[in-house]
Amino acid sequence: MAYIDSFTEECSAEAVNARIDEAVEPRFREVMESLVRHLHDFVKEVELTQREWEVAIDFLTRAGHMSDDKRQEFILLSDTLGVSMLVDAIQHRRPSGATENTVFGPFHLDGAPEREMGANLSLDGKGESCLYAGRVLDLDGNPIEGVRIDVWSDNSDGFYDVQQPDEQPKWNNRGVFTTGADGRYWFAGIKPVPYPIPDDGPVGQMLSCLGRHAWRPAHMHFMLDHPQFERIVTHTFVSGDPYLTSDTVFGVKDSLILNYLENTGGDTQWKANFDFVMVPK
Amino acid sequence: MAYIDSFTEECSAEAVNARIDEAVEPRFREVMESLVRHLHDFVKEVELTQREWEVAIDFLTRAGHMSDDKRQEFILLSDTLGVSMLVDAIQHRRPSGATENTVFGPFHLDGAPEREMGANLSLDGKGESCLYAGRVLDLDGNPIEGVRIDVWSDNSDGFYDVQQPDEQPKWNNRGVFTTGADGRYWFAGIKPVPYPIPDDGPVGQMLSCLGRHAWRPAHMHFMLDHPQFERIVTHTFVSGDPYLTSDTVFGVKDSLILNYLENTGGDTQWKANFDFVMVPK
Repeated sequence: MAYIDSFTEECSAEAVNARIDEAVEPRFREVMESLVRHLHDFVKEVELTQREWEVAIDFLTRAGHMSDDKRQEFILLSDTLGVSMLVDAIQHRRPSGATENTVFGPFHLDGAPEREMGANLSLDGKGESCLYAGRVLDLDGNPIEGVRIDVWSDNSDGFYDVQQPDEQPKWNNRGVFTTGADGRYWFAGIKPVPYPIPDDGPVGQMLSCLGRHAWRPAHMHFMLDHPQFERIVTHTFVSGDPYLTSDTVFGVKDSLILNYLENTGGDTQWKANFDFVMVPK
Repeated sequence: MAYIDSFTEECSAEAVNARIDEAVEPRFREVMESLVRHLHDFVKEVELTQREWEVAIDFLTRAGHMSDDKRQEFILLSDTLGVSMLVDAIQHRRPSGATENTVFGPFHLDGAPEREMGANLSLDGKGESCLYAGRVLDLDGNPIEGVRIDVWSDNSDGFYDVQQPDEQPKWNNRGVFTTGADGRYWFAGIKPVPYPIPDDGPVGQMLSCLGRHAWRPAHMHFMLDHPQFERIVTHTFVSGDPYLTSDTVFGVKDSLILNYLENTGGDTQWKANFDFVMVPK
């Protein structure tokens, strides 16, 4: 009375994958077969105990219960285990010289106001002012006209306006700019500050058990769009930030760290120059 | 400006694991390092897209929202991906001749009434009656006295009493027996019937997308406890059941399938004989 798909410790993943129907969409089959193989390999490698399995079920359940339209514990889990950055890296392999991507983050808002070049994004008047300026170029160094640049950052208390709807002016530290024929952009914002990701849930407990902190180094968010070029979603980071080597979501890339210089004689305390390089679609 | 733990596609898992503090408890480190490596290997192997990642986040979130004290979608996920059976297999490797384990399932209740040998567990009077009988032995074939045998099954409609608290008598098809010096047990129950696991949530959708059904073959649950022997948690299955080769939770083992025979001249329609063999602690 032997069954060809009998489940044993040795061929457990094969037994599960043998059940997938022949008519299943090939990409879904590929993803699920790989998921099952790696999941079973993990369980076998560590010889997971019943008690550890129960802890995992409880962790996932609590993460689900904590998630709603304002808080996403599974995204925090993906971010802190490096999965979000890995997916981003795989999907955005770019030639040398092109601006690198990093995590999108949960704090972007659609519909930020379009501003004239030179506008000041800091509406709460807090923090150290900074002139952001640079060019948007193609891989040959030619300026790109008509690039939509969407920028956003925290305020000097380390919170985005969406996190403090009653305390910050709407669209504080947000704006959209469009480049002209010279490919240049410039605007005033604040020198951003580090902040911790929300750590009062299961993911915060996990980080604590791993001896890890929940902090992200200070960064300014940029999203660049143009009909003929690949979208760029990235940050620039502040050199010297204490969390550059330990960003809890692994978002830092060397090419995205820039020096903030004293803006002697200018209208702002600091200046931060960065050129973006876009890749054709 | 190079950082030793810089996150790249090639060394993504190493970068994440390098963050674990030296003082972290060794077993937790081992489990998390392995989890991160296998998770990243999976993402790399299939080159997971941003859109697929979003589907996964949404799936986990919906599974969390569906889970409460009566419904556990993450356990169903673990069961249907073969993880529950794999953990059980790893933790209960037994010598040849010993009774094999299978999944515990979500329908056990503590506190079922202790019964005299020969009692009838079917309190709703539904279904085809069956005499369950056999012995509990050690590996040398000697009977074991004082074994606590906890048994439970669905009723003939395919539901456990806990699933229908208003329709079934309390403790329907449940009971606890204790073996005497001869190691024998015997009681009347029903010949169990196949049933589907709850499939109105994300796991049901996953099964449907994989072309899989949600059914379990008919089975009787047994849990055997004795101070000197390893606990056995298992089922016996009904030979000829249409779902024996496709149990949606992979619980079937050849050694647990038994023939239900007509109980000619007896008080029940069927008889099902099975001897359990326990391993010393």
